[in-house]
Amino acid sequence: MTSYCSICWEDDRIRLLDQRRLPQEERYWEITDYREVIEAIRTLAIRGAPAIGVAAAMGAALGALALHAETPPEFQAKFAAICREIAAARPTAVNLFWALERMENVARDHAAEPPAAVQALLVAEAKRILKEDGTVNLRLAHADQEVIDEGAQLLTHCNTGALATGGGWGTALGVMRAAWEAGRRFSVWVDETRPLLQGARLTTWELGKIGIPYTLIPDGAAAALMAQNRVSLIMVGADRIARNGDTANKIGTYSLAVLARHHGIPFYVAAPLSTFDFTLTAGSQIPVEERAADEVTAFRGQPTAPPGAPALNLAFDVTPHELISGIITEHGIARPPYTTSLKHIRHQEIARHA
Amino acid sequence: MTSYCSICWEDDRIRLLDQRRLPQEERYWEITDYREVIEAIRTLAIRGAPAIGVAAAMGAALGALALHAETPPEFQAKFAAICREIAAARPTAVNLFWALERMENVARDHAAEPPAAVQALLVAEAKRILKEDGTVNLRLAHADQEVIDEGAQLLTHCNTGALATGGGWGTALGVMRAAWEAGRRFSVWVDETRPLLQGARLTTWELGKIGIPYTLIPDGAAAALMAQNRVSLIMVGADRIARNGDTANKIGTYSLAVLARHHGIPFYVAAPLSTFDFTLTAGSQIPVEERAADEVTAFRGQPTAPPGAPALNLAFDVTPHELISGIITEHGIARPPYTTSLKHIRHQEIARHA
Repeated sequence: MTSYCSICWEDDRIRLLDQRRLPQEERYWEITDYREVIEAIRTLAIRGAPAIGVAAAMGAALGALALHAETPPEFQAKFAAICREIAAARPTAVNLFWALERMENVARDHAAEPPAAVQALLVAEAKRILKEDGTVNLRLAHADQEVIDEGAQLLTHCNTGALATGGGWGTALGVMRAAWEAGRRFSVWVDETRPLLQGARLTTWELGKIGIPYTLIPDGAAAALMAQNRVSLIMVGADRIARNGDTANKIGTYSLAVLARHHGIPFYVAAPLSTFDFTLTAGSQIPVEERAADEVTAFRGQPTAPPGAPALNLAFDVTPHELISGIITEHGIARPPYTTSLKHIRHQEIARHA
Repeated sequence: MTSYCSICWEDDRIRLLDQRRLPQEERYWEITDYREVIEAIRTLAIRGAPAIGVAAAMGAALGALALHAETPPEFQAKFAAICREIAAARPTAVNLFWALERMENVARDHAAEPPAAVQALLVAEAKRILKEDGTVNLRLAHADQEVIDEGAQLLTHCNTGALATGGGWGTALGVMRAAWEAGRRFSVWVDETRPLLQGARLTTWELGKIGIPYTLIPDGAAAALMAQNRVSLIMVGADRIARNGDTANKIGTYSLAVLARHHGIPFYVAAPLSTFDFTLTAGSQIPVEERAADEVTAFRGQPTAPPGAPALNLAFDVTPHELISGIITEHGIARPPYTTSLKHIRHQEIARHA
């Protein structure tokens, strides 16, 4: 069935499935230089908040391995600089910063040790982040025993499958897969998700492999289907969630949330704890990446607009917590009021690691 | 400035700007066979409700000109068959049927006359429909003296410019042009309008020629801009309006109307009387065209989804009248309750022609 891995670590190199080429071509990219990891994240060869976190950790490990003959203080300084460089790859998905923080903590905790020893610890930490991501996402996938009903007509946006994570089955799409494998039967409307078509290219490809029936639609058609009572549930992923539940996700998500409210359709977010940013009180504090205009004005090099047409390419939008019915995490489903329920989930997480 | 014509009649042939090639190429298509007109309408070489009406009338005229040596009853029967064939080109825009009805009425009113005489009358009627379309659309464009404020941040969907009409400046885009030429300054967010990108390809091209500043966005980004208070007014065209004001227009329009309501933004429709279907009490009676899936799954022959990916391609959606702030027509702006205001406008129209 799913015989692909979005990212893995093999013999001190990264092997990642180049998602820019999907679904036409299943090509893996072997990376030994952390600068190529930055390029892979920037250009969306790898994307999806959890997957970006894993890629960042592995990129930091590659960067550490390239540092030779430094004294411990030099190693620490250069490693911190590499992490800062990787952190600048994309601004919105918090998993990037979360994973780098874990890597930097490992380095700092062993600041006096010889670089070779710290390198080994950093590689081990990157592999641990990948492994945990798989475990966490599988737990998240199985956390829903109630949201997806038999016969549901789901609608989803962007890609939240195994491709969007380092391991496991994905976030929102993982929840769908777990429900499917538990025997529930349903179908999925897939928003194509302009401009980069992660829905059309990636979600269709993954749902097809699992065998879940789906129908691809232009993003603008979602509302009409809701009005026709052909959508019973919306489920999306997240790039960063503030502690009040406000959720940054792929541009177009907020639109669906408003439409869901208007039509009385439940709207769920699925995300691991690593996507939560408890330092932010509200979504307005989440930095939203603006990407190059030519992602909107051209498709694979073919122009779709007049030469020089000005375009705005916001990569994400923020859905206020009031529009979210529930947030599915590896610790269960958080319900409003989120400030309370997310605090509770966070404490569970802290207790687990204590 | 606007040195193009979407469709014209020259020496017993149609010359139409092939909109499938815009904005890359400004190529005209010379048509002498009515079957090519059907192809042009079906494939969206010409589109936009008023332009489709003009094309249908001219197509019927071409069809009539090709009938030789028939007796008057044979001519009538064959002409009626041609009109039925053209009427099947697209189901939603009512202008198609409205224009063909005018042509058929001319033929029926002269049922006993020799075909050559009727042919000349039909060509004259087609030219009259084109000319009237220009006059009506210019009146419509100037009907708004209040909706577009100085400094407005408009948002529009699909294409409603001169390209969408047979003459004049267009519908919604015509209203914008008249406001611009009256000295008001504003800017326009252009929804790219998937799947066929009429916004990205055509509206940008037309706004650029007029000199109105615009910014192209993916359809899914409109909601985020509304939340950021960067949209003050939404204005779109229509393909068919029922007598209660329910409006069929390009897929994605209904989505904007719901989002406008949620954000307290006025939502206007601009359409000539020829786009109204007073035989329908409500929008639910408007047939909505479903087009080929490959318009969604590929872009200019390049696949955007896995081979055989199922897709739904509804060409239009229906916006209920409750979500519409006003409908701009050549007889002024209709306001809710539309059943009353549209009846009044219809009576003005009837009085005008009496």
